[in-house]
Amino acid sequence: MHFPNDGLIPIEVSARHVHLSQADQDVLFGVGYQMTVKKELSQTGLWAAEETVIVKGPNGELKCRVLGPCRPATQVEFAYSDGFRTGIDVPMRESGHHEGTPGCTIVGPKGSVEIKQGVIDPQRHLHISDEEAKAWGLEKNDIISFTVPGEQSATYYNAVVRVHPTFRLNIHLDTDEGNACSLKTFGGKAAIKSIERGGKLIWRAE
Amino acid sequence: MHFPNDGLIPIEVSARHVHLSQADQDVLFGVGYQMTVKKELSQTGLWAAEETVIVKGPNGELKCRVLGPCRPATQVEFAYSDGFRTGIDVPMRESGHHEGTPGCTIVGPKGSVEIKQGVIDPQRHLHISDEEAKAWGLEKNDIISFTVPGEQSATYYNAVVRVHPTFRLNIHLDTDEGNACSLKTFGGKAAIKSIERGGKLIWRAE
Repeated sequence: MHFPNDGLIPIEVSARHVHLSQADQDVLFGVGYQMTVKKELSQTGLWAAEETVIVKGPNGELKCRVLGPCRPATQVEFAYSDGFRTGIDVPMRESGHHEGTPGCTIVGPKGSVEIKQGVIDPQRHLHISDEEAKAWGLEKNDIISFTVPGEQSATYYNAVVRVHPTFRLNIHLDTDEGNACSLKTFGGKAAIKSIERGGKLIWRAE
Repeated sequence: MHFPNDGLIPIEVSARHVHLSQADQDVLFGVGYQMTVKKELSQTGLWAAEETVIVKGPNGELKCRVLGPCRPATQVEFAYSDGFRTGIDVPMRESGHHEGTPGCTIVGPKGSVEIKQGVIDPQRHLHISDEEAKAWGLEKNDIISFTVPGEQSATYYNAVVRVHPTFRLNIHLDTDEGNACSLKTFGGKAAIKSIERGGKLIWRAE
């Protein structure tokens, strides 16, 4: 298979963060509150806020950055180690898939909310635009594996391909996955090793 | 290649810890101090002490368990994330290889020491006895890769084979590497994927 860019995909390591629903933001920060954009993120329209909240589990709490804009349901994205530190047993899920996930307490400057579900360890994933997906021979929901190079090299499996017209090409890892390869937050490029579609292996690197 | 145990090797995840020289232990805990054994470890003769010390870097400090018995030189074993949290830029090294590694301050109940070097991110490694190494077709300093199964599966490369008559068969990962696969401290078994010897690939799984 011949891939663009010599088959290399930029990696981004995402630290734990929270997406808030408008209703929860209203409780945590007050009705009509406008977040301050700290940084535009690589995915178009997404930004990190200056604001943070405290996420509390049964055994501890962690400060989490808020990402905007608001979403239909509040979602806390934790690495496995963040779950360990707070006592929340966090399952791996795709973004937005909250069925059967644990909740937590979120504390903001104006109030706090108890969410019943929505704490996830985000499944490894690739963002790609419709146009680039064609060039790479990838389709929505393909499952890929990819190798992070370096002296602490690793191949990660079970990463889902997410396709959207506005997506920019990159692979998202959580901090545990990045740290296991000694990657900085923006660090390095990965090479696709295999592609599965509908449960069948359709391509594998030599 | 036909391996014993269906080719599966127990994995142990090692949290950060410190091995002390006798001289440094004398300063930190007092001359003649006897550590209390909390737990015998899987490698014969090694034990975790009830005692902990504080390891300080330029940006933070972390509590670290002491492992015994004493060694010729003090060594702090950190995961990459521990280095990040303390501000120590920790290089990957085999145990005992301290040339060019950073130092730190270690604080105990009776005093503190500044070590000039010895903070390492331990290279992934396999412990194996001489007898088992023969059965597995492995030699000292072979470099292997291995796959951790599960929904957050990963293959880790560049793990060094360490052979000693008293070693018990297992693979040691640091907490970042374990967390990237959602492994508990004692968690799971890995399958060897490749063996390199003297820089040459001598075997690879299909």
